[in-house]
Amino acid sequence: MGEHSADVAPKGKAAPRRTSIGGRRNPASASAILEAAEAILSETGLAGFSIEAVARRAGAGKPTIYRWWPNRSALLMDVYARQKETVLRVDTGTLEGDLVELLTRLFAFWRDTPAGATFRSIIAEAQSDPASLAALQSFLADRRAYVGEVVARGIARGDLPPKADLPSLVELIFGFAWMRLLTGDIAAPDADHVPDALPARVRLLLRGAAATA
Amino acid sequence: MGEHSADVAPKGKAAPRRTSIGGRRNPASASAILEAAEAILSETGLAGFSIEAVARRAGAGKPTIYRWWPNRSALLMDVYARQKETVLRVDTGTLEGDLVELLTRLFAFWRDTPAGATFRSIIAEAQSDPASLAALQSFLADRRAYVGEVVARGIARGDLPPKADLPSLVELIFGFAWMRLLTGDIAAPDADHVPDALPARVRLLLRGAAATA
Repeated sequence: MGEHSADVAPKGKAAPRRTSIGGRRNPASASAILEAAEAILSETGLAGFSIEAVARRAGAGKPTIYRWWPNRSALLMDVYARQKETVLRVDTGTLEGDLVELLTRLFAFWRDTPAGATFRSIIAEAQSDPASLAALQSFLADRRAYVGEVVARGIARGDLPPKADLPSLVELIFGFAWMRLLTGDIAAPDADHVPDALPARVRLLLRGAAATA
Repeated sequence: MGEHSADVAPKGKAAPRRTSIGGRRNPASASAILEAAEAILSETGLAGFSIEAVARRAGAGKPTIYRWWPNRSALLMDVYARQKETVLRVDTGTLEGDLVELLTRLFAFWRDTPAGATFRSIIAEAQSDPASLAALQSFLADRRAYVGEVVARGIARGDLPPKADLPSLVELIFGFAWMRLLTGDIAAPDADHVPDALPARVRLLLRGAAATA
């Protein structure tokens, strides 16, 4: 990727653009590139996913792609963020139900589409590449904010007291989901397709270890 | 590593040996190799860590190392598992205190030694290499069992009811720690060197989101 560094904006300017579409990107081309990337990912998986393949499929030049996404990992992050949008919309009527449903859907999304392999690869890449880590942190902040809204709705409904520790709850939910993904433990063994022990984990988060007796 | 495959035992036999020293390994050589690996890791970090460098330092042949550890990642896993032993011995008198202390020490260990970078690299490698994932799962099961004992001691002391959901508690603790490590969020900002919001996370796990008001 070194040969494309001339196309990449200075670090300080590029960072905020990396996790959201729009701004100074040409919307038509950006969405054509993301659609091409998504199609390649679902057809061939990560193995066939490269900036070159995406450029060919989108009918775009590689320099165009590198101008908006500094590397493969940043492009993957945007494709992943786009796909996940629909998964998180839950409304079962209770906070406990919402969290179980949300995690069940998330695990199914990871398990049944290329998204799980994609996100594992994004997290892996972030362990050695600071730019990928920054993009991942920013994505995670967005998603935590969304789950924070689900919890806030539960608080408004009286499912939790107004002063419940929302940041702790949200962080522990994401930690649980990530570890399950990263250890390959997202299978859905029961008749309702709810992953192993998931409702128990949600119950503990809401009621505490002391209350689960 | 393909050229060494003749030295590697059949998969079914190699797997149980990968995460523990002993069995049919020659103890003297195995421990010399692990010591050499540990020394290289703390002097040069992951960048200088290779089977070749470890062999040179230990005065061992590369085939000898490959006979016991099929790849760099398996050797890293054993070095990491050895280093961590001392970190987890906590006994503050309360379960809440033990868990805060255990996580504080773990984060310091990850932050202040090469162990954090090592473990991030192990987790990253496990995302594309099934043998590394199997070794990681087995290591994780061991560590969960140990933290399970800390929790069981708390139950015996009456800090939690006898029927508390120990598996949920232990899994959520590890998920929290992993996510902090993988997002680079293990800094210790306060005067007691306790990482950000760590006591709040432990409190939520023990008392539940509903009780933290």
